[in-house]
Amino acid sequence: MKKKILLAALVLNGLTLFAQSNDEKNIKLFYKKALTEAKCYSWLEYLSNDIGSRLSGSKGAAEAVEYTKRQLESLGLDKVYLQEVMVPHWVRGEKETAYILDGKTKTNVAICALGASVATPKTGITAEIVEVQSIDELRALGDKVKGKIVFFNRPMNPENVGTFDAYSAAGDQRRIGAKEAAKFGAVGAIVRSLNLRLDDFPHAGNQSYGDLPKDKYIPAAAISTNGAELLSKLLKANPALKFYFKQSCETLPDVVSHNVIGELTGTVTPENIMVVGGHLDSWDLADGSHDDGAGVVQSMEVVRILKNLNYKPKNTIRVVLFMNEENGGKGGAKYEEVSKQKNENHIFALESDSGGFTPRGFSIEADDANLKKIQGFKDLFEPYFVNSFIKGHSGSDIEHLTSKTIVKAGLMPDSQRYFDYHHAANDKFDAINKRELELGAATMTSLVYLIDQYGIVLPTAN
Amino acid sequence: MKKKILLAALVLNGLTLFAQSNDEKNIKLFYKKALTEAKCYSWLEYLSNDIGSRLSGSKGAAEAVEYTKRQLESLGLDKVYLQEVMVPHWVRGEKETAYILDGKTKTNVAICALGASVATPKTGITAEIVEVQSIDELRALGDKVKGKIVFFNRPMNPENVGTFDAYSAAGDQRRIGAKEAAKFGAVGAIVRSLNLRLDDFPHAGNQSYGDLPKDKYIPAAAISTNGAELLSKLLKANPALKFYFKQSCETLPDVVSHNVIGELTGTVTPENIMVVGGHLDSWDLADGSHDDGAGVVQSMEVVRILKNLNYKPKNTIRVVLFMNEENGGKGGAKYEEVSKQKNENHIFALESDSGGFTPRGFSIEADDANLKKIQGFKDLFEPYFVNSFIKGHSGSDIEHLTSKTIVKAGLMPDSQRYFDYHHAANDKFDAINKRELELGAATMTSLVYLIDQYGIVLPTAN
Repeated sequence: MKKKILLAALVLNGLTLFAQSNDEKNIKLFYKKALTEAKCYSWLEYLSNDIGSRLSGSKGAAEAVEYTKRQLESLGLDKVYLQEVMVPHWVRGEKETAYILDGKTKTNVAICALGASVATPKTGITAEIVEVQSIDELRALGDKVKGKIVFFNRPMNPENVGTFDAYSAAGDQRRIGAKEAAKFGAVGAIVRSLNLRLDDFPHAGNQSYGDLPKDKYIPAAAISTNGAELLSKLLKANPALKFYFKQSCETLPDVVSHNVIGELTGTVTPENIMVVGGHLDSWDLADGSHDDGAGVVQSMEVVRILKNLNYKPKNTIRVVLFMNEENGGKGGAKYEEVSKQKNENHIFALESDSGGFTPRGFSIEADDANLKKIQGFKDLFEPYFVNSFIKGHSGSDIEHLTSKTIVKAGLMPDSQRYFDYHHAANDKFDAINKRELELGAATMTSLVYLIDQYGIVLPTAN
Repeated sequence: MKKKILLAALVLNGLTLFAQSNDEKNIKLFYKKALTEAKCYSWLEYLSNDIGSRLSGSKGAAEAVEYTKRQLESLGLDKVYLQEVMVPHWVRGEKETAYILDGKTKTNVAICALGASVATPKTGITAEIVEVQSIDELRALGDKVKGKIVFFNRPMNPENVGTFDAYSAAGDQRRIGAKEAAKFGAVGAIVRSLNLRLDDFPHAGNQSYGDLPKDKYIPAAAISTNGAELLSKLLKANPALKFYFKQSCETLPDVVSHNVIGELTGTVTPENIMVVGGHLDSWDLADGSHDDGAGVVQSMEVVRILKNLNYKPKNTIRVVLFMNEENGGKGGAKYEEVSKQKNENHIFALESDSGGFTPRGFSIEADDANLKKIQGFKDLFEPYFVNSFIKGHSGSDIEHLTSKTIVKAGLMPDSQRYFDYHHAANDKFDAINKRELELGAATMTSLVYLIDQYGIVLPTAN
């Protein structure tokens, strides 16, 4: 019965009023299916609890490729395949140690090496420490940091209600802090974790030495927010105190990995491709249930729901589970490279990579005409408390996609708790709420359906 | 500087455009203060971790009255006082036990006595069990339940995105299930916990025997959702299995307790009273951090922020921490009774009693003119992702308030996780996110401020 309604909508969607009412019914059906029979939560349980962490090049990453491919195959899609991609292979080695050496008092603090960092010497590094709030402050100090460890301690701004804005504003310290400190002869970089809470978890994340010569690389680590507060306090009392840290991470040769791709082939314009995806890899400290196990299983759920309803998309709907978002972005880049070789035409891409929390809306990367078009769907999402349709960043993996006419969007879940878990040892399955995860999947399905039905606004020829 | 802006807004709020811009600034300030210097989280930590559960008549309830009164006194409000109220005093006694007796196999399941329930005999009750999905189904069975335990097993409907709707729709089983079953000679009532998750927590909550004669009272308990699923499955295989449960709860004589009240006296129309509140009492199985420790400390935070900014309200702003919402509603009723005696005029009441999660909007109990007026503030809340201004129930404590011209509202936080914790042993401080709690307080402060500034629409004389 419900399948018939869905087909009627397809046939008659030129009649706006009638179609509108069918859109309401179909979207209601997507939410119902997500809340009563979704597979995303059990898929995530397996990814998190049976496979575990999935850093590029790890056993977990390889297992996740095989597992998600098998699961997509079980859905009866038109195509399921792997796309080969070379990825960096950085390993943490043994657990890091660090302490503050204040006179004769040693106080242990929690740190973790940042991605792509080099190791310390085997016996670790001990040096005086200089606290700065910004790269600019470091540059002003210049050679004064020579032979010292630079401690970047600018907190995420708690006043930003949108926590991703606070993350962006504090992120340069982690991404390029070590590189900049090395230029002035520093021997190490310790970066405050990008976490709005005070707790004992150090938060991993990538950093880059840029075009620095290899012999200038210095080890970089994140310190927990509680550790950062303590270090800062003790430094004020004794600017001559020393800091010790030891880490044994290393970058091994690149290895072969894969993007996992599944397709529902379009029935009217199969050459027009719509992507829905997340990234398979995670940091190594935990299961990566929010980042981005959630996005992976939600994207799989979108095609499961549509296939299960026997929905025949006009355009080709492609689920893409990207590899290596966390420390290289090679999966996203490879996908675009192959797509260009094949002369493919993408009209839409949706990424879920902001956690598995209650969906609040979409962050939309589009011209004004398409932004307005998507905002025109707002009323259809009102019953599900999905209210925010704003212009903004869509997703790291799909940012590579450059088709001329593409519209991109990112699922925007509630962001208040995300950085409590992001890249840290507590990003585990128990931090996921089943309903919130499922609501995200339903919200994504609804937007994919609407774009498939109503298309995007093509630029007018000039 | 910021205080000056606030005063300017007060003086000039007749000029809509200018005032609008000041409203934006002031609301920004409320959010800033909530996110950077609020006391609500540490107040809640004390209420939850140092005082603990606060069922009416308990030591915890009495301590919470003293503690919150002291804290309100420390804020320098114009008045802080207690309002005496007699409350029921029900105690759980020793921990309940229950098992399914299937042939010779005993399987323990988690139950908890429902509020106001009587005890079982000291040796417990063993009887056959009849599963029903509704009160209607029970009535259709009639005398067939005689001598048996009735098992109410209708789940909350997962399809309801608004989980409070699912709660309301399933709630009759808990509230009047035992009373109705007793009418047909049942010897006990076991009710599926009002929880959307499958887990092992039984969820407490009140029930009432109504006008049943005392000798007809039968013991009533909630069973965890996992327990309910298991019982239902085993019953299908063996309808003759038996159920055992034992509980030793009792209702003691009513005791004296208190509402806690603090006031910022109005500077223009002090006779017009605006209430902001939550309830001090909680169920006894945990700290009641979400229900309703969160609402208590958020309400206190509203007056702390306004007082701290030296805001001079036009109307009297009264924070009311109600006693006995959970099992009697005596605090709310007493507050209204005294208010009537004093001929007080309430224009507005806001309650927070839906958990300390990210605020999504308000549920507004008002006529169309006032609903429209409050919806007119929507744009001011947009930067904080507070988007829902809908007609609906405000709060149990303020539902007693009957002033002719009163407008009421309830803070509406994200509701997906609320029933995971509601009335259960896991409603503890670690389930609270500091930022989410603070955002709720800022959202409440903003609405109180706007209503104080712009008043409510009075009914036109006919």
